[in-house]
Amino acid sequence: MSSGRSTALHTDRYELTMLDAALRDGTASRRCVFEVFGRRLPGGRRFGVVAGTGRLLSLIRDFRFGPEELRFLRDARIVDAATVAWLETYRFSGVVTGYREGELYFPGSPILTVEGTFADAVILETLILSVMNHDSAIATAAARMSIAADGRPLAEMGSRRAGEESAVAAARAAYIAGFSATSNLEAGRRWSIPTMGTAAHAWTLLHDDEESAFRSQVDAMGPETTLLVDTYDIAEGVRTAVRVAGPALGGVRIDSGDLPTVAAAVRAQLDALGATGTKITVTSDLDEYAIAALAASPVDAYGVGTSVVTGSGHPTAGMVYKLVARESASGDWIPVAKASTEKASRGGRKRAGRVIEEGTATTELLRIVDAGDVSDTVPRGTRALQVVLVDAGETDAAFEGPRGVEGARRHHAQVRAELPLGGYGLSRSDPAIPTVYQEGAPPSEA
Amino acid sequence: MSSGRSTALHTDRYELTMLDAALRDGTASRRCVFEVFGRRLPGGRRFGVVAGTGRLLSLIRDFRFGPEELRFLRDARIVDAATVAWLETYRFSGVVTGYREGELYFPGSPILTVEGTFADAVILETLILSVMNHDSAIATAAARMSIAADGRPLAEMGSRRAGEESAVAAARAAYIAGFSATSNLEAGRRWSIPTMGTAAHAWTLLHDDEESAFRSQVDAMGPETTLLVDTYDIAEGVRTAVRVAGPALGGVRIDSGDLPTVAAAVRAQLDALGATGTKITVTSDLDEYAIAALAASPVDAYGVGTSVVTGSGHPTAGMVYKLVARESASGDWIPVAKASTEKASRGGRKRAGRVIEEGTATTELLRIVDAGDVSDTVPRGTRALQVVLVDAGETDAAFEGPRGVEGARRHHAQVRAELPLGGYGLSRSDPAIPTVYQEGAPPSEA
Repeated sequence: MSSGRSTALHTDRYELTMLDAALRDGTASRRCVFEVFGRRLPGGRRFGVVAGTGRLLSLIRDFRFGPEELRFLRDARIVDAATVAWLETYRFSGVVTGYREGELYFPGSPILTVEGTFADAVILETLILSVMNHDSAIATAAARMSIAADGRPLAEMGSRRAGEESAVAAARAAYIAGFSATSNLEAGRRWSIPTMGTAAHAWTLLHDDEESAFRSQVDAMGPETTLLVDTYDIAEGVRTAVRVAGPALGGVRIDSGDLPTVAAAVRAQLDALGATGTKITVTSDLDEYAIAALAASPVDAYGVGTSVVTGSGHPTAGMVYKLVARESASGDWIPVAKASTEKASRGGRKRAGRVIEEGTATTELLRIVDAGDVSDTVPRGTRALQVVLVDAGETDAAFEGPRGVEGARRHHAQVRAELPLGGYGLSRSDPAIPTVYQEGAPPSEA
Repeated sequence: MSSGRSTALHTDRYELTMLDAALRDGTASRRCVFEVFGRRLPGGRRFGVVAGTGRLLSLIRDFRFGPEELRFLRDARIVDAATVAWLETYRFSGVVTGYREGELYFPGSPILTVEGTFADAVILETLILSVMNHDSAIATAAARMSIAADGRPLAEMGSRRAGEESAVAAARAAYIAGFSATSNLEAGRRWSIPTMGTAAHAWTLLHDDEESAFRSQVDAMGPETTLLVDTYDIAEGVRTAVRVAGPALGGVRIDSGDLPTVAAAVRAQLDALGATGTKITVTSDLDEYAIAALAASPVDAYGVGTSVVTGSGHPTAGMVYKLVARESASGDWIPVAKASTEKASRGGRKRAGRVIEEGTATTELLRIVDAGDVSDTVPRGTRALQVVLVDAGETDAAFEGPRGVEGARRHHAQVRAELPLGGYGLSRSDPAIPTVYQEGAPPSEA
C-alpha cells in the first residue's frame, strides 16, 4: 500500500531545526521513547477509537528524503549541509509499538510508542499525529453513530465535506468503527471497502420529469435500485417510484424534511401500495443524536455525511507526541515530562493493559516501567493492549492494506463489546473506565 | 503543479451510476450548468473566503481514468463496459468560471460554475466540493484570526491536528487569508509559503537541563532564535534564556498558562533584563477570540494550531454542487432547481457582481440570466466577480502554483478592505452585505 511519494516533508519545521542542533551537540544519538496519547477525550465522550495505524505504517515507510525534498531543505536553508547529508540516508530504524487499530482508548492510553535515537524519532512527530488525530477523531464519532444505529446499516457519504485525501481516510476510519459502506470510490479501490450510491437530485432535474428519471434509472439498474423521492413532492415521488419500478422496488431515499414524520408517512404509503419490502434510507444531516432519535422510526438504513467526516463536532482527537524517557549522557534511562501548569504529563514508558472482569472492561491500567525494560510483560490479570507495529524499521504487513482494515474492524467490534453499559451513552460524561497509573515494580495482582 | 496521480476516484459512486444510466438513455450529452454555492454562512459569520481554486485546477487536470481506476470500476461492477470505454478517454472539456481565489463570498454566491455535458460535469462534483469546502472553511476562519491579530504576524502550526494532506491545504488557505507563515514544510516546498519553527519541549527535555538546551540552540541558530521558555518554570526559563543568549535574544515562545497575565509578566521581566527587543510569541490554544483578547497584551506574534486547521468550529463550508440549468430535448435552456422544503435553491445561471459604493461593498448582486448567454456582462455599477478558470478543458496557469497563491493572497487583502465596518465583527450576526437576486433582463442601473 505504499504510495511511492515521499511523506518526509509532512513535518513541522521545528523538528528539523532540532535535528540540526542535536547533530551538532551530540544529543541526536541519545535513545528516546516518545508516546502518543490524548490528555482527555474530546466532547465528554466515554471512549476513543484508535484509527490510522495501518495507514500510518506505509507512510512511515515512505518517509524518505529524496532529491526534491533535500533540494528544498538546502535552498530554503532549513538545515545545514551536514544535516542534509544525514537526511539523505535516513530511514526510520527504530521500534513502534501501539494499540491495535480499532482498539478503544482512554485518557493517557499510550496508543503509539516510538523508540529510537532522538534523531530517528523526533522527525516523525507531525506525520504520526496528523494521521492518528484525524483518523481516530472520525472513528470515534463513527463508533457512536454505529451504536446509535443499533444494527441498521450505516453508509458514509461525506467525502464532499472533507479534504479529498482526508475523505478517503475518513471512509476507512468509519468502516473500521462499524459503518457498512462508503460512497467514496477511492476508498473502495484502495482499501476494499464496499461502496454504495445510486442517484442525486441532479438526475431527476436532468430529465423532463420525475417519472422519466425513475424509469431510466430502473432500466439501467433494475427495480432493486434505490430511488431518490424528494426532489419535488415526496408523496408524489413515492407514488411515481412504485408505479415505475413495481412493488419490488428496492428502496427509496429521503434527503430532507422532518425525518421521523416523513419516514412514518412514507412507510405507510409504501405498504398501502404493496411495496412492503421496499426499504427506506434517510440521509439528511444525520449525526449520532439524529440517528438515535430515529430508533423507533421505520427506517432501514442511514447515510451520514458531514458529521462523520468532521468528527461530529470534534474534528481532531487532540493527541500529542511527547518525549517520556531518554538516555542520559552516562547511558541510563531517565523519565522526563513537561512540568508547567495544565499541560503536565506523566513521564516514563507505559505498559498498558485493560482489566476485564467477566467480559467487561473495568480499568485502563498503565504501568510505568523502566524504559530499558523491553520485556512484553503486561500488568497481571489484564488484556495486553500493545503490539509491535514496526521493528528495526520493518512494518508488520498484517496490519496494512485491506487485510489490516478488516482486522481492525473485527477487533473494534470485539473490544467494543467489552464496554460497561455506561460506555454506550451519547451524552457528555466521564470516560467509561478510569485510567490508573502504577509506578515501580510489577504489582503482585492487578 | 500536477501531482501526476489520478484523482478520478475521489468521486462518490452515484456520479458514475448516473453517468452509466445517462449514457444509456441519451441524456448524458445534454448540456448542463452546475453551480457551487453555500446556502448560508456557517456559524453566523459575516463573510466567507473562497479558497482551493488554484489547487483544484491541477486536480481537475489529473482527473483521468487510467488502467488501475478502470480495472477497479469494471471488477467491482460499478459501471458497465460501455461506460468503462467512455471513461477511458474522458478529459474534462467544458468551461469553469468562478470567483477568484481569496475573494469574499456570501449566501448564494456562485463561487464556481461548471458547464459541459451532463456526463462531463456530473462526475466532478465530489472532487470540486471536497477541495472548495475544506479550503474555504479554513480560509474563512483564518481571515477572522487575521482580522483579530490586527497586523501582528500569525503563523499556522496546526498540521498535527489535520489529515496529512489536508494540513498542506490548510497552510495554503491560511496564508491566502492573511497568515504570514506555516510550520508545514511540504506547504513550503509545494506552494512557496514561508516556513517557521525552532524547538519543542522535547528539545529541552532531551538535554540535561534547560540551560544546556538553550545554549545548544543558540549555538546552532544564533541569538536571534526563539527559545521556548515554559517547559519547567516560565520566570526561570526567561532568566536562563537571556543569560544564555544575551539581551539580543530574538524571541521567547510561551505555550501554556493564562496568556494575558503571563505575557505581561514576561515582557516586564525581559525589559528589566535589558532584553527590550526580544519578541514574545504565544501559541497556546489560540482562536480568533483568544487572539482578540490579547490585543492589548505585549504579544508580538501568534502561532495558531488546531482552531485554524479545523475551521474554528466549522470544518466545512457546507457548499453544494447543484444543477441549475440544462438543455431540453429540443435544445432550449431550462432553469432547474430542487423544490422540496428547506433545501430549495434558485434555478438558472447567475451572473455575479458586487456593488461597491465609495470603496465599500453594499450588495452581492446575482443576476439570473439565460444559460445560453455566455457574454461577460455583469450587472452595471458592480465589480465583476467571475473569471474564466478552465476553458475547453484548459486551465489558466495564472491561478495555479505558487504564483496563484500569491495572487490570491493579494486579492484577498484588497477585497477584504471593501467590507463595511460591521463585516469585521467576530460575533454571530447576519452576512456583512445582503444577497440580492435579479431576474430577467439586465437592469438599467444596479
